[in-house]
Amino acid sequence: MTDEQYVVQPIGWVQSPLVDRSAAPKQGDEGSPDASLIFDEQFSEGLRDLRVGDDVIVLTWLDRARRDVLRVRPRGNPATALQGVFTTRSPDRPNPIGLHRVTILAIDGLTIRVRNLEALDRTPVVDVKPVLDRRDR
Amino acid sequence: MTDEQYVVQPIGWVQSPLVDRSAAPKQGDEGSPDASLIFDEQFSEGLRDLRVGDDVIVLTWLDRARRDVLRVRPRGNPATALQGVFTTRSPDRPNPIGLHRVTILAIDGLTIRVRNLEALDRTPVVDVKPVLDRRDR
Repeated sequence: MTDEQYVVQPIGWVQSPLVDRSAAPKQGDEGSPDASLIFDEQFSEGLRDLRVGDDVIVLTWLDRARRDVLRVRPRGNPATALQGVFTTRSPDRPNPIGLHRVTILAIDGLTIRVRNLEALDRTPVVDVKPVLDRRDR
Repeated sequence: MTDEQYVVQPIGWVQSPLVDRSAAPKQGDEGSPDASLIFDEQFSEGLRDLRVGDDVIVLTWLDRARRDVLRVRPRGNPATALQGVFTTRSPDRPNPIGLHRVTILAIDGLTIRVRNLEALDRTPVVDVKPVLDRRDR
């Protein structure tokens, strides 16, 4: 199985004041500015039941990440020991898929305004899913 | 941005008694059997800090899903109304990335045994991330 390849098709992209990775928050709720998700028109039918106030999970493709990294220093702190990348949220990883829990602030056609997104401007969006916490049940 | 393409490289695959999509649970904690994640040797360094008892998020590529679906009936129930796919967890969606919260039961080299994985046998694994709930903070 592991020699097969699968192609991700962006469904939209992030519009954010964050343009510099070194200055971006490590996690969404650590001082991220509000940002917008701009969706491609061909996916509009998939969006139609999203509502202001919903918490959703946004998946992105972190296109400026390195994919050859297997050990990192958590939070980029040089004082910490190297750690296997799969126990961290480092953007640098074999498949740089970003996982972001955000709150929908506004919806205007194909533009969805969200709180708590730490992704950089122009990051491709690849999926949106409802939150499914155990605590929701 | 939306005309670019990105290639997902599987880092391993699922070994599970679940082989039939119609019989698989809709969510991991709805009666999924225990399953194993079999990782490719080249990614072993990334795994080394995972521990038995950890709750982690596993991302998969749901390779048997349809990618041309934008509206679905939630949980496949024919009595429910069609709903935009991005407000559901349907495997059929433009980028069929599965998001699974699982508990690590055992680790044996490149094989990690987990609880609560509803993915089918031979589903490619594309990422593992630590849980990062707000309730953890």
